[in-house]
Amino acid sequence: MLIAGASGYAGAIAARLVARHPRLALGPLTSRSDAGRRLSELYPQHRVDAVLEELDLDRHADVEAAIVAYPHGAAAPVVAGLRERGVKVVDLSADFRLTDRATYEAWYVPHEAPALLGSAAYGLTELHREAIRGADLVANPGCFPTAALLALAPLARAGLVRDVVVDAKTGVSGAGRAATQTTHFVSVTENVRPYKVGGHRHTPEIEQELAALGAPVPVTFVPHLVPIDEGELTSCYVTPAEPVSAAALAALYAEAYAGEPFVEVVDAPPGVREVRETNHCRIFAHAEARTGRVIVFAAIDNLWKGTSSQAIQNLNLMLGYPETEGLPA
Amino acid sequence: MLIAGASGYAGAIAARLVARHPRLALGPLTSRSDAGRRLSELYPQHRVDAVLEELDLDRHADVEAAIVAYPHGAAAPVVAGLRERGVKVVDLSADFRLTDRATYEAWYVPHEAPALLGSAAYGLTELHREAIRGADLVANPGCFPTAALLALAPLARAGLVRDVVVDAKTGVSGAGRAATQTTHFVSVTENVRPYKVGGHRHTPEIEQELAALGAPVPVTFVPHLVPIDEGELTSCYVTPAEPVSAAALAALYAEAYAGEPFVEVVDAPPGVREVRETNHCRIFAHAEARTGRVIVFAAIDNLWKGTSSQAIQNLNLMLGYPETEGLPA
Amino acid sequence: MLIAGASGYAGAIAARLVARHPRLALGPLTSRSDAGRRLSELYPQHRVDAVLEELDLDRHADVEAAIVAYPHGAAAPVVAGLRERGVKVVDLSADFRLTDRATYEAWYVPHEAPALLGSAAYGLTELHREAIRGADLVANPGCFPTAALLALAPLARAGLVRDVVVDAKTGVSGAGRAATQTTHFVSVTENVRPYKVGGHRHTPEIEQELAALGAPVPVTFVPHLVPIDEGELTSCYVTPAEPVSAAALAALYAEAYAGEPFVEVVDAPPGVREVRETNHCRIFAHAEARTGRVIVFAAIDNLWKGTSSQAIQNLNLMLGYPETEGLPA
Amino acid sequence: MLIAGASGYAGAIAARLVARHPRLALGPLTSRSDAGRRLSELYPQHRVDAVLEELDLDRHADVEAAIVAYPHGAAAPVVAGLRERGVKVVDLSADFRLTDRATYEAWYVPHEAPALLGSAAYGLTELHREAIRGADLVANPGCFPTAALLALAPLARAGLVRDVVVDAKTGVSGAGRAATQTTHFVSVTENVRPYKVGGHRHTPEIEQELAALGAPVPVTFVPHLVPIDEGELTSCYVTPAEPVSAAALAALYAEAYAGEPFVEVVDAPPGVREVRETNHCRIFAHAEARTGRVIVFAAIDNLWKGTSSQAIQNLNLMLGYPETEGLPA
Repeated sequence: MLIAGASGYAGAIAARLVARHPRLALGPLTSRSDAGRRLSELYPQHRVDAVLEELDLDRHADVEAAIVAYPHGAAAPVVAGLRERGVKVVDLSADFRLTDRATYEAWYVPHEAPALLGSAAYGLTELHREAIRGADLVANPGCFPTAALLALAPLARAGLVRDVVVDAKTGVSGAGRAATQTTHFVSVTENVRPYKVGGHRHTPEIEQELAALGAPVPVTFVPHLVPIDEGELTSCYVTPAEPVSAAALAALYAEAYAGEPFVEVVDAPPGVREVRETNHCRIFAHAEARTGRVIVFAAIDNLWKGTSSQAIQNLNLMLGYPETEGLPA
Repeated sequence: MLIAGASGYAGAIAARLVARHPRLALGPLTSRSDAGRRLSELYPQHRVDAVLEELDLDRHADVEAAIVAYPHGAAAPVVAGLRERGVKVVDLSADFRLTDRATYEAWYVPHEAPALLGSAAYGLTELHREAIRGADLVANPGCFPTAALLALAPLARAGLVRDVVVDAKTGVSGAGRAATQTTHFVSVTENVRPYKVGGHRHTPEIEQELAALGAPVPVTFVPHLVPIDEGELTSCYVTPAEPVSAAALAALYAEAYAGEPFVEVVDAPPGVREVRETNHCRIFAHAEARTGRVIVFAAIDNLWKGTSSQAIQNLNLMLGYPETEGLPA
Repeated sequence: MLIAGASGYAGAIAARLVARHPRLALGPLTSRSDAGRRLSELYPQHRVDAVLEELDLDRHADVEAAIVAYPHGAAAPVVAGLRERGVKVVDLSADFRLTDRATYEAWYVPHEAPALLGSAAYGLTELHREAIRGADLVANPGCFPTAALLALAPLARAGLVRDVVVDAKTGVSGAGRAATQTTHFVSVTENVRPYKVGGHRHTPEIEQELAALGAPVPVTFVPHLVPIDEGELTSCYVTPAEPVSAAALAALYAEAYAGEPFVEVVDAPPGVREVRETNHCRIFAHAEARTGRVIVFAAIDNLWKGTSSQAIQNLNLMLGYPETEGLPA
Repeated sequence: MLIAGASGYAGAIAARLVARHPRLALGPLTSRSDAGRRLSELYPQHRVDAVLEELDLDRHADVEAAIVAYPHGAAAPVVAGLRERGVKVVDLSADFRLTDRATYEAWYVPHEAPALLGSAAYGLTELHREAIRGADLVANPGCFPTAALLALAPLARAGLVRDVVVDAKTGVSGAGRAATQTTHFVSVTENVRPYKVGGHRHTPEIEQELAALGAPVPVTFVPHLVPIDEGELTSCYVTPAEPVSAAALAALYAEAYAGEPFVEVVDAPPGVREVRETNHCRIFAHAEARTGRVIVFAAIDNLWKGTSSQAIQNLNLMLGYPETEGLPA
């Protein structure tokens, strides 16, 4: 297992999970900014004692699979290089999530490997399990889409989503390791703040997947930064296409996620602490009789189910291992 | 100035503000749980060195005005007793906010002083300034209604609110001084959690006042607990009755709050730290072209503008003082 | 495995560790305050779905071993009852840590099972491994003594401790699950506060064990509450009996902990995040040339190595299992 | 009033205090990094609506007094330039605190204005009030020395300090506004970490002033970073030159600070929240009978009494105003 970009938060957690995985072997760990340093120096808590290297595809592509943990734009050419050499890839960036190139380029940057766009499976495991199983390239979802789509999928598939607002709350690790005024402790503590109002790049990803599930609606999505490290809650406010009773709602969600090892439909609003450092998503759905609205909450760890542990979940499928292997129960 | 219930978070801040107010004199401070202790022992940070007493209306009603900081239900008889003795009252509880007794009793408890229900002015100063000026009894609003109504009033008055979701994030001080599993540090830190989904008691208060402003709509209101002390953000998602342009929206809010000393219409999403320990409310309104929705954020300090400093603002009006007196600029 | 007192923070983590342990089987979980509730309801994050019961020694003592997670004073009779029935016990309370009854009773309460005092091994695994291996009763150390003694043992054994100050910083979970003004989020956030100055009950425990190691000195020990959940740092300021060079100090610590699976001697001051939710203790020792002082820091998770995971480490030895079994690497 | 370096945390608070000061007028605010931006954009919470400029001594020195909030090394030439133009200066940097040039240069950098070294008063107001009153240049103390020296001065003056360890806990704002891995929220939350062990630059400053007070002893000083914004606690462990009784200790501190407007000798260990955003220092002294040690705690807000509000306190004296003017009671 190559991990390209192992010095970021997501890459480092991926390295930790691979290092403790019973079937995966930790291969090269690369970093654009910290080559030469030990990962354990950057993240003592992960206890992965390996030296970070400069990525060199000629040397490092001698692996079965890779996780690419690069920023959008920078990921595409690396992914392309790995695919050319026959390496299976889970890409954590946004580069292969949007199937429409124009949409990608409208929200991000010019795409450097558009030929691969159609070949990637969208890595929201619970919704695309079979496609992932056969895929050589998986576009791991954004953290917000992971939570929002797991929250909304049962309603969308049932044709019940007429309109939806997604109000999300996320920890600071979602902003990445870069030290900025935004991530400075003093800016964050005792604060709550909406950001990228009306323009967060996860919006088209949520819309694309909702449409595929049967709900082709424009989505209002607003993330808020809260003073926690890891964790993400999406509060989804749905105007249903027709009235939904509490009993019908409960049945819909119970059935949708029966047997899922990592989705827990619960009977009280979840807190993000309940899923911290796990691959679990906790979902609570409520039918508000007074307004007719349906409210669905989903809690995940943005760096785990929202990114790195979901990547392992996908890798397990791609490599023919049990889906839960190496993921703490 | 009598402050009944000065040992709670709100009462103690009221005491601090009165103690530093250039025209108000601190009178008796009473407490049901901590009589005999010094307020400075409970709240060293407030530096109000007075002994808490058991409330005795016969002795303590010899004042021009009082702030009653009791829980709902317990407040009504004390307010009634003070009014019988001619004392002007700002009541921080919910007991006189809802004008309809049946609604009050459906959401709270049997009302012990229903005769006074009609006589109270609703103390959201910016919206009811003239009524407050002449009032002997002011029902200070709830913290969530304060923020939500300031956010929504311009749209409601313009007849533009067809539908609204209020997603609120609040600090732990809103839960009061009582030590519970909910307020335990270990339960709160690194956590975000929705609560009272579909049933928070501030809902009918928001609906009553929105209707009075011109928007008789059922409201979905969901509060979330975040790991901060003081501070509250309401994110209001409005489906407008007709399209609203960004320019029209900006003009609507600028005009609505021109000249208001404590409402700041800002041009970027506010964080709650910006209003901490102030009587200010910061509002940002955004017209989302892609969805046609209008999103309005309001940030306040739940214990200040959301409770105690707004009480002082109201008292200033009731007693004929300048509205901003004693409130830090 | 019986866990008596599984509804507290320490007991619940013990239950989580036992549930995932490859050789231990989770037996009855008891609670004095929450019998009848599910542990997963109290601690969703632990994912241990078992019903808490009232302790009934006649029914529950049919186990090979037990962890008793009761407060001091309440633990002694339960431990005695279990020992009478032949159950091996790790006691998390202070009841069997102090070997001198008079000292125990001076700092705590009258002892209800003094006959057992001499029979307990002191469960600081790294310092008493052989005694623990043969023990039927292990007195698990306090969290502060665990960190302070691991920090000081190499110096004490070398006869180098003439005088010592232990300044400790601890997270709120150390105060337990009880909701009090002290543990209220609003009291803790943005605060740092010393407590029990000159009188913390872990003082005689540190002194007893230091004396046994060769340093019979009175200890100044002052804990401070900091706004974190789990984690504890002890900063130990030692006036050495004779000058200690940096090289000699490094050699002393390297040798003392060579081969220890859970003690990491590191070359930079550790942060408590590095050991969160692990059984590890990180130690950094510094010889301050300017003053001649030796400064040693030890970081642990107060609920893990400071309590529950150390209990598992001890149980492994008592039951003849590999010492690291069931403890995340 | 010129404030040079108003875009840093300390300079911005100084600007806020000057803006609300009844006798001081806010003059130019300068910034090396943010000239052209409004201070209210950087710090909305301070509500100081002024544009930051590039410093130009020829234009900006037309003021009676200035606060220089530059890093050490950079401050000296600016201070020299202002003094040449007759401007009274409070310098927040370390550049004029150490009277011995060699000591300064050993701990800091080559000094660019050594001629001024002797002319500065050390601005720990309570200890040097008369010198400050007549001074044209005041070297405002470091935050740690402020707390440590107020804690230790009564003992030092009484000849009672034979040996001392200062263990300090500080909030993140002490590291300044620069965004680094150290100040990243994710690095700080749920963490406690010692730093600059054995080598913090405030050490010689504490030693210099202790010696001047009568305690020429080497000091062990270790700061720890804790997850709070503003606030600092110094825990001072003193081996007294002769036994000190509790009564004598209480009398010593009561007498030392009688009448001081900003030093509060309290009878329980203080938390830093009690002094947040104030110019107060809270001190608690304890004689530990068991060990003979004296333990003294001092709590301040590192950006207020530790920096900016103490600068205003000093300016008040330098300009002949009442010492407490413009400082919230």
